[in-house]
Formats: sequence, structure tokens, C-alpha cells
Amino acid sequence: METNVRRMQQDIENLARFTATPGQGVTRFSFTPEDRGAREYIKKAMAEAGLTVREDGAGTVIGRRSGKVDGPVVMIGSHFDSVRCGGAFDGTAGVVVAIEIARVLEEHEVPTVYPIEIIAMVEEEGGRFGAGLFGSRAMAGLLSDRQLEFRDVEGVSMAQAMRDFGFDPAQLGTARRHPEELKAFFELHIEQGPILEPEGISVGLVEAIVGMRTYQVTITGRPGHAGTTPMDMRADALVAASEVVQQVRRIALDVGNGAVGTVGQMQVLPGAANIVPGEVRFTVDLRSHIESALDELHSRLYSAVEQACAREGVSYTLDQVSDAKPAHLSPNLQDILEREARVRGISTKRMISRAGHDTQIMATLTDAALVFVPSKGGRSHCPEEWTDYADLKNGADVLLGAVLELAGAEQR
Amino acid sequence: METNVRRMQQDIENLARFTATPGQGVTRFSFTPEDRGAREYIKKAMAEAGLTVREDGAGTVIGRRSGKVDGPVVMIGSHFDSVRCGGAFDGTAGVVVAIEIARVLEEHEVPTVYPIEIIAMVEEEGGRFGAGLFGSRAMAGLLSDRQLEFRDVEGVSMAQAMRDFGFDPAQLGTARRHPEELKAFFELHIEQGPILEPEGISVGLVEAIVGMRTYQVTITGRPGHAGTTPMDMRADALVAASEVVQQVRRIALDVGNGAVGTVGQMQVLPGAANIVPGEVRFTVDLRSHIESALDELHSRLYSAVEQACAREGVSYTLDQVSDAKPAHLSPNLQDILEREARVRGISTKRMISRAGHDTQIMATLTDAALVFVPSKGGRSHCPEEWTDYADLKNGADVLLGAVLELAGAEQR
Repeated sequence: METNVRRMQQDIENLARFTATPGQGVTRFSFTPEDRGAREYIKKAMAEAGLTVREDGAGTVIGRRSGKVDGPVVMIGSHFDSVRCGGAFDGTAGVVVAIEIARVLEEHEVPTVYPIEIIAMVEEEGGRFGAGLFGSRAMAGLLSDRQLEFRDVEGVSMAQAMRDFGFDPAQLGTARRHPEELKAFFELHIEQGPILEPEGISVGLVEAIVGMRTYQVTITGRPGHAGTTPMDMRADALVAASEVVQQVRRIALDVGNGAVGTVGQMQVLPGAANIVPGEVRFTVDLRSHIESALDELHSRLYSAVEQACAREGVSYTLDQVSDAKPAHLSPNLQDILEREARVRGISTKRMISRAGHDTQIMATLTDAALVFVPSKGGRSHCPEEWTDYADLKNGADVLLGAVLELAGAEQR
Repeated sequence: METNVRRMQQDIENLARFTATPGQGVTRFSFTPEDRGAREYIKKAMAEAGLTVREDGAGTVIGRRSGKVDGPVVMIGSHFDSVRCGGAFDGTAGVVVAIEIARVLEEHEVPTVYPIEIIAMVEEEGGRFGAGLFGSRAMAGLLSDRQLEFRDVEGVSMAQAMRDFGFDPAQLGTARRHPEELKAFFELHIEQGPILEPEGISVGLVEAIVGMRTYQVTITGRPGHAGTTPMDMRADALVAASEVVQQVRRIALDVGNGAVGTVGQMQVLPGAANIVPGEVRFTVDLRSHIESALDELHSRLYSAVEQACAREGVSYTLDQVSDAKPAHLSPNLQDILEREARVRGISTKRMISRAGHDTQIMATLTDAALVFVPSKGGRSHCPEEWTDYADLKNGADVLLGAVLELAGAEQR
């Protein structure tokens, strides 16, 4: 059995149209009109693949195919939200592949012992509310107490956005799944890095996923007239924030071992050319696959913010908004995937994921596997993001084989 | 004769209601619904003061009172736009005082030899389109060729905004006035600095206004995934921009003599927590009352941007968007204002203005005077901006006296 590359290409191209920034890549934030469009498309595709479709309390779309027994479930999926002006493959590729696997099972009328669930997660990127992995965290019971209070740039809380979209935030807890309900979780995702493509390898088998800690910083100075406020009487929030941006880079380089640090979002207020900035809000994203390195990045960030603000005479708040531990994935599933690839003549490589993924959260619940397909030029989170469809099919076929084995299919 | 403080207070309070940010100070950008509201209020007040009201090709409101001869004209006025989340007094105070002077002349039926024009200028702050002093530059024929192409943060060009508002950009040239048409220009403005209030002085007589150069910088790096892009493979536009922010502060301190440098507006794109910034756009504002110091600030800014971008491997564009020379105002008008204050028992002080004002542009056309009234705590461009109404009346009365003299009134 194998997947159909034409159908997957069509799904990816169709889903790319649900974007808030046409012509500038895919911008599909959760609980927006673009989410609605993609969601309806996914639900329809799932239903056509013979799945029983529902949405859980977090807003994740789940399509279920019954097994001979009622559980545990083999899950396959990824997320369908995107960053601002991102690409057509990040997340979406894994959702499309999962639906295609369901279609193949349906076409071939393959009975399985265990039920299969196709999963399309929401708000993995955190593009709208600043903390990601929302759908998987809801499944694993790992949401922060304050999650629903997070606000988008327009001040809309996540609770409000869910309500406006038609979900009841009070039902969030019902998304929770338990280890005994699950047999395995599989995710296919684009690599988003520069390893597979130059080596000419089709499929990456991820052994570990970097841990990631994200922070929201607000620096509050004193707004003032850009002409009449002498340099030595200023409390310029942007001067302090700029120093932090420099330090985040310095700290990541110092800690080393592949650690990275990024300030990706920044708002300068009141935001007029002739006013000394009174407030600057920005995010910090720190990552490493080594837990002790994350601890060091964390404590050096706190020192850097404190020192930069003390020097400029401004105040600050520094809130950690997420903490994803480095995740070590199931060697057993890696072995199954590798065997499946060898049978099909597809090249593989074991590797570290330097991006966070829902798989790292699902790994706290069940055996989890993450399959990478190559990213052209290592580019991601941009409109140019690209994966050759032949590579996508290789990843999908390897995943199909492993799912058939895990779910206890009689045919292969 | 004297001005009526109650009427001026009422006008200021009424005009403060035309704001896009209720509860967060006055935000009144040009050619917006808030501009429309304030504009209609001003036109009505001018008409009630017996003035013949028109709008010039730039959108400035002009109320004219005839003299015994047809010209030259004594002009009094200021601007009625504001910065984002600014105060109720900046600009508005001078417009309100000018209208009040017209009311007093009308009430007392004072004939004057020369005509008087009450002026409410547009887009002095540059809050919307990034370069200010628009109304006065249009009068003086000093607009940049590209002025109408400047865009607001939503990408609307100034030409488009004017058209949408009901003005024809092709008529901009008709706003031009010529030296022989003008006898003098008077502006009352809040000090926006910390000098008058602590010294307990009611009225500042400005001898010179700082020169100001403003710039728009766009730094273009390479967006990338915040996890998978190694630190040494990044071209992070925000890291480079942050270095420039630090350098702008350093350069102003080095040049000294009261020079100031500010980055007040910054946009970070694409603006997601987990994407390395690919583009940062920001403004730079440099000021000094010494022309050679402005030259040094300018050349050091260019070096700083070049070096910061070279170090990070990013490209940039750096455009100077305005260049206002330091202006030296009319000693004769200062003497007249000072005499008038002495007669009325009002304290004065000669001083430098460290903020730019329409007066500096009008000084290229005619004898010009700028009268300051105290700012509480030196604060301006913020909702807390405040001038005691008793101080405002003192400034208005001094101005009234000087106008009576310049316009050749028989009564005093």
C-alpha cells in the first residue's frame, strides 16, 4: 500500500489559500476566519475518508476510524495553524499526510485491531497568543493556569477568542486524554532545518526534540518629547530593550552546544518618531536539547534584563510563558519506522529536532515518533518554505507502514 | 484688553474630545475622523469670531479678519494635529489662543490697519506620515518632492489620505504664501520642557529653535525559524537595529551641547515570537541648535547603521525624510513681546526651543515669534501634559498686546 502524492499536493495547495496575507505566505492564526476555512476543509476531507469527526474542548479536529477493539488508539497528526507569513507545509503537511493515510486505509478497506485517530491540532505555533503547543498540551493536561488569559496583539484574550469562535473555554478540560487510551502518536513534519536536503536523505527519524522556554518582557520607561528631554534625563524603554536583544544573542553564543535565543516580536509604544519610547513589549525564545543549558540560558536572561533596566532607570516585568522540556522519543517506534523505510528503499537518518513540536507534548502521554521530510534550503516560517512532493510521499509511505504495524492491520 | 480664560479652557477641553484613543490622551492624526471633528469645531469657532474661513491647499484652516489695507498680514496660530497618545495642549493651545485673540478684537470692535489671519496648521507632528511641519512647509514652499508619497503605517500615502478626506493633492502648491504678503507670524506653544515651571516664569520668549533631521531606516535580514537557524547562520534584522538604537544614544551624548537622538517608532517583521526578524523599520530623530553639530550627528548615524548592518550581514536603506535648520527668530518681535509683558506685570525669560515648531518654517518667510507657556513637570507628548490656565492666559495676553501693536490697532 502506498499514499497518493497528487491528493496530498492538492490538499496542501487548497489549504494554503486559507491565509490572512494572500501573496505573502500563509498566516493562519487560531480561532480566526482562516482557521474556520481550513477547519471546514479538514473536517470534510476527514468525513470523506470515512472518519467520524469531532472537535475536542481545545478546538483540535479529530477524525476517528474504529478498530476491532475499542482502544488504545494509534494517533497520527500535526497542527494546522501557522506563523505570520509562514509557508504552506509547516504543520499542514503532517495533517494532510495523516488524512491521506486514512484515505488509503478506507480505499483498501483495511481492518485494524486498534482504532486510529487523525489529529489536526490548533495553536501549535503560538502565533496569536504567544505560547504554543496548545492543542497537545490540552490533551496532555499540561496547560498553564493562565493560558486562557493570554491576549493577542489586539488585546483579545484566548478565552474570548474561543467563545467568539463557538467553543466554550469551560470545556477545555474535556480535551484531556489519558495514557491508557493511547497506543502511539505519530507526527510527520517538515524539517525546517538544513540537514536532510544537502545529504540527499528523504526521511529524518527524530530521537530528541529541543526544549524551549518562551518569555514575555515588558519594559516601562517614561515617554517624553524627543526634543526637550535631555539624554541624561531619559528613561527610554527601547534603549533598555535593545540592550536585552544584544544580550540574548550573546548569551546563546556563550552557552553554545547549538543553543539559540531569539527576540522575534517587539512593539514600541507609543510609537511616534518624536516621542521617547515609554514602553516596549517583546518576546524571548530560548532553546536547547540539554536541560542544564536551558537553566543557564534562563538565569542569564533574567540577569541581562535586570541589568539593562537598572542602567537605563526603567522598570520591567519578565514572565515565562512556556516551558517545554527536551523530549526523548520512542526508540522502538524509530526502529519500526526505519525497518519500514528499508523495506521500501527509502533513506533515513536519526537526528535532533531543533524546533518544538506537538510530539514532544504527546510523548508525555504515550510512545511518540516524529518523522521529518526535507526543507528546501532549510527555510521555514516564510513564504518560500518548500518540500518536494516526492519527499513528502516517501515520509507518508514510511508512516503508513508503521501505522499499519502499530494498529495491527492484517494487510500491508 | 485681555483674553477670556474660561473660553480658552472650554475650547481646549472640547478639542481634547476629538481623539482616536479616548482615555489614553489625544491622538489626532491628520486627515482622519478626529481631524474632521476638530477641524469643524475650529471653523465654527472662527466663524463665530467674525472671521472669513477657508482651507488652504495643504488642509490648514485659515480665518481672516480684514484690515484697513489689504496686506501684509499678521498671522497668529499653531497646529491642531497631535502625536499618538499625546496631550490636550501641544499645538491646540496656540490655536485656541489665536482664536481667542480674534474674539477679543471682534468683541471690542477693534479696527486694525493690517489684516489678521488665525491659522490652524495640519500635520505638524508628522505622527501619521513620518515627516512634520507640513502645513507651514506648504506655506513656505519648502515641501520635499516626495512628501505626498510618504505612507502611514497602514500603507496609505499622504496623497491618498488627502484625496479620501476631500482635498486635491494637485492643489498643494496653492498653499504657498510669499514674504511680501506677510507682516509677522506669532505662535504660542507649550514649552514641553523643564525650564519655565521650576523658575516660576509665565512666558518664555524663544530666541532660536533647534534644527532637526529625521530619518527612516529599513534593515533587511533573512527571516528564519527561531529553533533551527543556528546563531552563526542568522541575518537578524533586529540584532542590527538594536545596535543602531544603542549607537544613536551614544552619538548624541558624544556630540553633546544639548544634542539629542531618539528612535521612537519601530516595527519588527514578520513579528512572531518564533521567527528570526527578517525586517525592521524604524525612525531616527536628531536635534541640535548648532548646525555643525547636526552635520556631525548625521554623518555618525550613517556610519553606525553601516557598521551594525555589516557586522550582522544584513542590508539596509537609510533615508533622510526631513531637515529643519536651526532657526533664529526676530529680536524685534521678542522686544515687543517683552515690553508688552512688562506693562502687564508678567515675567518672561529668553530661551532656546529644543522642540521643532511651525514658527521655524514661517521664519523663512517673515519676522516670526514663538511664545512659550510652562509645561507642568516639563512633560509633553503624553496624556499627563498640562499647562495651568492662568499661565495660558498670561501668554495669550502678551500675544494679544503684541498683535495689536503689529497690526496697527488704535485701541490697546
